[in-house]
Amino acid sequence: MTLSSIPLNERPALVRKACKALGVDGFIIPRGDEYLGEYVAPCAERLAWLTGFTGSAGLAAILPEAAAVFSDGRYTVQMEEQVPHDLWERRHVALEPLSDWLAEHAKGLKIGYDPRLVSRSMLASWQAAGVELVPLPRNPIDQAWTDRPAAPAGPVVPQKLEFSGESSADKRRRLGDALRKAGQDAAVIADCTSLAWLLNIRGSDVPLTPVAHGYAILHADGSAEWFVSSDRLSEGVLEVCGPGVTVCSPADMAKRLEALKGRAVRVDPVTTAVWFDTTLAAAGATVVDGTDPCTLPKAIKNTTEQDGARKAHALDGVAMARFLHSLTVSGIGQHETDLVTRLDGLRARSADYREQSFDAISAIGPNGAFPHYRAQVGHDRVLEAGSVYLIDSGGQYPFGTTDITRTLWVGDQEPPAHIREAFTRVLKGNIALSRIRFPPGTTGHRLDVLARAALWQVGMDYDHGTGHGIGSYLSVHEGPQNISPAPRPVALEAGMIVSNEPGYYEPGQYGIRIENLMLVRPSSFKGSKGTFLEFEILSYTPIDYRLIDVALFNDAELNWLNAYHAEVQTRVSPHVEPDVAAWLSEVCKPLVR
Amino acid sequence: MTLSSIPLNERPALVRKACKALGVDGFIIPRGDEYLGEYVAPCAERLAWLTGFTGSAGLAAILPEAAAVFSDGRYTVQMEEQVPHDLWERRHVALEPLSDWLAEHAKGLKIGYDPRLVSRSMLASWQAAGVELVPLPRNPIDQAWTDRPAAPAGPVVPQKLEFSGESSADKRRRLGDALRKAGQDAAVIADCTSLAWLLNIRGSDVPLTPVAHGYAILHADGSAEWFVSSDRLSEGVLEVCGPGVTVCSPADMAKRLEALKGRAVRVDPVTTAVWFDTTLAAAGATVVDGTDPCTLPKAIKNTTEQDGARKAHALDGVAMARFLHSLTVSGIGQHETDLVTRLDGLRARSADYREQSFDAISAIGPNGAFPHYRAQVGHDRVLEAGSVYLIDSGGQYPFGTTDITRTLWVGDQEPPAHIREAFTRVLKGNIALSRIRFPPGTTGHRLDVLARAALWQVGMDYDHGTGHGIGSYLSVHEGPQNISPAPRPVALEAGMIVSNEPGYYEPGQYGIRIENLMLVRPSSFKGSKGTFLEFEILSYTPIDYRLIDVALFNDAELNWLNAYHAEVQTRVSPHVEPDVAAWLSEVCKPLVR
Repeated sequence: MTLSSIPLNERPALVRKACKALGVDGFIIPRGDEYLGEYVAPCAERLAWLTGFTGSAGLAAILPEAAAVFSDGRYTVQMEEQVPHDLWERRHVALEPLSDWLAEHAKGLKIGYDPRLVSRSMLASWQAAGVELVPLPRNPIDQAWTDRPAAPAGPVVPQKLEFSGESSADKRRRLGDALRKAGQDAAVIADCTSLAWLLNIRGSDVPLTPVAHGYAILHADGSAEWFVSSDRLSEGVLEVCGPGVTVCSPADMAKRLEALKGRAVRVDPVTTAVWFDTTLAAAGATVVDGTDPCTLPKAIKNTTEQDGARKAHALDGVAMARFLHSLTVSGIGQHETDLVTRLDGLRARSADYREQSFDAISAIGPNGAFPHYRAQVGHDRVLEAGSVYLIDSGGQYPFGTTDITRTLWVGDQEPPAHIREAFTRVLKGNIALSRIRFPPGTTGHRLDVLARAALWQVGMDYDHGTGHGIGSYLSVHEGPQNISPAPRPVALEAGMIVSNEPGYYEPGQYGIRIENLMLVRPSSFKGSKGTFLEFEILSYTPIDYRLIDVALFNDAELNWLNAYHAEVQTRVSPHVEPDVAAWLSEVCKPLVR
Repeated sequence: MTLSSIPLNERPALVRKACKALGVDGFIIPRGDEYLGEYVAPCAERLAWLTGFTGSAGLAAILPEAAAVFSDGRYTVQMEEQVPHDLWERRHVALEPLSDWLAEHAKGLKIGYDPRLVSRSMLASWQAAGVELVPLPRNPIDQAWTDRPAAPAGPVVPQKLEFSGESSADKRRRLGDALRKAGQDAAVIADCTSLAWLLNIRGSDVPLTPVAHGYAILHADGSAEWFVSSDRLSEGVLEVCGPGVTVCSPADMAKRLEALKGRAVRVDPVTTAVWFDTTLAAAGATVVDGTDPCTLPKAIKNTTEQDGARKAHALDGVAMARFLHSLTVSGIGQHETDLVTRLDGLRARSADYREQSFDAISAIGPNGAFPHYRAQVGHDRVLEAGSVYLIDSGGQYPFGTTDITRTLWVGDQEPPAHIREAFTRVLKGNIALSRIRFPPGTTGHRLDVLARAALWQVGMDYDHGTGHGIGSYLSVHEGPQNISPAPRPVALEAGMIVSNEPGYYEPGQYGIRIENLMLVRPSSFKGSKGTFLEFEILSYTPIDYRLIDVALFNDAELNWLNAYHAEVQTRVSPHVEPDVAAWLSEVCKPLVR
C-alpha cells in the first residue's frame, strides 16, 4: 500500500521543505481525500505515505521541530507498530486532541492546511489559541511525494433504472423543488455517494464503495453541472443521467462556482471541503449551511431499492449458509484471513457479487474482543475447537449492499455457561429491537436501550452504537439515521435500512456480535399520530443454537427465534447443496424450553 | 381566587392606562411570579386578575387595540370558559406563540415587561421582528390592581438536620468550592426550592410547595446573603442556617448585587429573572450563565432524605390502602371532589401530614382521558359501577414528598377486554422500567422507551413524559433529571428520586395511569464503567388485579407483580384496621397464569 521509492524516514524533511517554500511553518494532514469519504484511493493515502500509519481514521501534524500522528483506540497498537517513533509522537485523537498539541507546540506559528481536503467542521475542531491556520494553494505532500500514483480514472458506469427505481431527472426535480422552497438557488454535492445516488451512476475509484469521484452543483430548476472527466464516462451514463445534466471539466469548477455570484447556495459543512465555502464567498455567493439535500432521500429506499435489498440478502444468505456449513466440515486449522478469502469466494459464486462492502472482520477467540479487529496475514489466529469465532462481513451487489455478523461456537464440546449467557443476552437485545413497533417520528436513538436491556440486567454492555444506515449498492455506513446512545434528531422512516448489531466483548477472551439488517416498514397498527412502523428483517442466516441458553428466553423471544429459523430454512434451503440443506435443517430446528 | 372589587371587564382599560403612563404601548403578563415557581401567591395572580384565566400555565399580552391569552392544550376549554371573549383572543402557546402574535399586532410598538417576573429564556422566546420589548421600572398591573392582596408574610421555619441530613454550612461549603473551581465568585439563588434546600428552611408562601419566598447570593467562600424580612424568621431558623448567613432586607438587594462589581457571578438563565442580569451587568459584574448550583445536589438525596422518603411513603401507603378499601365500601355515588377530600382526610390521620403536594387528579370515566384533569365542585362526575377511576395524588410530610397514581375498575362486573389490555400494557411498561438496571452515566431519556414498548406493540402510546424528579418536602416536580422522549443530558445518579408513570388515554372513554416513585440506588452488578444502578420502589399500594390480563404477562412480569403485592401486604397490613387488612390480603394475592 502507498508504495513509494522515497524512504519513510526521509519524507518528513521533504514535506517541511515544501511547507517552507509555501510560506508556512507546518502542515496538517487529514486521512481523508478531496471527497471526505470512508475509503480513499492510493493517490490520496497522504497520511500513510508521510507517517507509515495505514489505519482508516487519523490525522497528522508536522512542525519544524515536532510532529505527531493522531488516531483512536482501535488503532493504538497499529500506530505504535507502523510509525517511526523518532520522527512522530503518537496521540489519541479524542483524549489528546490536535488543538491541544498545537497550542503546546505551535504558538505563534503559521500552520498550513489543504482547503480541498478539510471540512469546515474539521477546521473548527483544530483551532488553537495563538496558532494561525492557513489555507494553502498547493498541497506540500503532493509536491514532496514525487512518485505519487495517478488519480483513479476507471470507467463511470450507469446505475440502471431497474436498480435505482427513480430517474435522475425525477430525483433532481424533487430536490430542486425543495431547494426552491428553502429559498436556495443551488446546492454543492460533494459527497460521492450523494453524487452516485443523484445521477444514478457508480464507479470504482475507491475499494469497497462503488463510487466515482466527482462533484456536482444542483440547481433549483433540477439541472446539474457534473464535474468529471468526460473520457471516463461509459456508454449509457449520459442516458441514465438524463436531460439537464451538463458534464463539466473538473478544471472549470472554480469558474462555475463563481458564476453563482449573488445566489444562495446550500453547503453541507460536514461533507464539503472549505475550499467550496471560500470560493463561493469570494465570488459573492451566499453560503447557506444545510444538510446535503441527497442525504435523507438517499436513505429512504424506494420500492425498487427495497426489492433489490431483499434480492441481495437472498444471495448473501446462500453464501453465508455455505460458509457456516463449511466451517463444520473444514474450519479447524484455518487462519482468520483464510476464512475471509473463503467467504469472499462463496459470495463470488453469484455472478451478481461485485466485492466486499467493507473489510470483513474475521476474529477468533480474544481477537473478537476488538469490535473493529482486522486480521492480517502472518499475524492472524487459527481456528481451533473450543473457541468463539466472530465473522462480520458484507457484499456489494448491483441492487443492494449487505452487512451481517454471526458469532459461532467452534468444536464439539459444550460451550461454557458464561459464554452462552452472554450470547443469549446479546440475542435477546437483537430480538427486542427486531420486534419493536414504534410511532412515526421516533428517532433510532430512542430504541437503542431495547438492544441493551438484557445485558444491562447483569452489568454487561457494549461500547458502540447498535445500528447504522446502509446504502443501496453504495456505502455500508450511510446516514442520517442510526440507533445509538447519543441523540441524533433523525426519525426512522419507512424505507430506511438499519443494522441491528448488539454485542458483548470480554477482553482477552472473546467477542460476541449478532447483526441483521432491517428495513423500516409501516405496520398494521395506527396510533393517534399516524401509522406505527416496524422492522422487516432482511438478513436470513442461522444463529448458533449451541450458544443459546433457552432458559433465559421468554415465550415471545423463543417464538421469534423459531419463526426466524423456519424462515431461514424456507428461504435458503432451495438454493443450496443437499449437505448444506441437511445442515440447515439441523441448525434451524425449533428450540424448546 | 384573586378576589377584586374591580369588575373583570374594566381591568384591561386600567392596565392600558398604566402602560401609557409608563411610556409603553402594551404589556406582557406571564403567569409566574418573582420566583418563577410552579405555584404563586394570591398577590401574584396577575394573569388571573387581568384575564379571568386561572390555569397553572399561560401568559397574556395587552396592546392598545388587541389583547390575547395563551395557554396549552390542557386548558383550552377552561380558557374559553373563563376569559371574556370580547376582550381577549385565546391562543395555543406553542402552536400560535406570542412572538407570532406580536409580529402580527405590535409592529413598531414598544411593549413593556416586568424584568422581575421574566427569565432570560422567556424573554428570548418572545422576540418578534419590529417589536421593541422594554423592561419597566414598575408593573402596570400592580398599579391598576388597587385591591391586590398583600404578599405572603408567614413564618419561615427551620428544616431540622434530622430531616435535611446535611447542615446548611456544609452545603454552602461544597457548593462554594464548586463555584471557586469554576472560576466564579458568587451565584444568584433565585429558585425558592433551591433557597429552601440550601439554607435548610421551609415556609408556606404558596400552596402545595412548602417554600418561603426570597433570594440569596451564595459566595465562593460558602457564605450567603439571604434576602428576607427578618420579622418572618421563626425561632431556630438562624441556628439551622448556621454561620456565614447574613439576613439582608429585600430592599437592599440591588445594592448587594452592585457590590459584586468586578466579580464573576453565576446566573441560571431559566430560573432567574432578567432583572438580576441587568442589575449585575450595570454594576460591572460579569454574568456567567450556568445551572443553579443547588439543582443537582438537591436532586441527589442523602441517606437521611432517602430514609425520610421511605417513611413518607410508608404513611402514604397506609392512607392509600384505606382510601382504596373505602371505595369498595362507599365509593359509588361519590363525586370526584368528594374523593379528593376523603383521601386528604385519610392522609391527615397521620400527624406528620402537612398538605397535598399538588392538586389531586380525581377522574371518573372520560375525565380520566385528560392527563391533567382537575375536578371542580359542581362540575364533577359521580362514581358509578362499570367505570374506570383514576386518582393521582401526593402528600407533603416534613421528611418527604409523595406522588402516586392508581387506576381502578369500579363495580362488580367484569371490565371489558380492551380496557384490561390497555391497563396491562401500561403496567408492563411500569414493570419494565421498575426492573431495569443501567450503567452509570445513563440519562433518564434513554430509558423512556422501556415504559412504552408494550403499548407501542399494538399502536398505543401516551403523550406525556414517563417520569419526573421530586423534592424532599419540596416541589413535587423537581429537576434536573427526568424520563422523557426528549433528550436531556442529565444522568440518573444514586440518590435521585423519579416517578414512573406510563399511561394510556382513550378520549371520551377513560384514562389509565400507574405511577410509583422510585429511588435510584447502586445495584450489585459492576460493569467496565462502574457500578450499575437500579431502582428501589418507594410507593407500595395495590395495583387493581381485576384490570390485569395475566395472559399478556411473561414470567418476569408476573413474578415482579406478585413480589410487589407481597411487599405491599407486609408493609401496610400491620398499620391498618382489620377490614382494610382483610381487603389487602384479597387484592394482594398472587396471580397465576
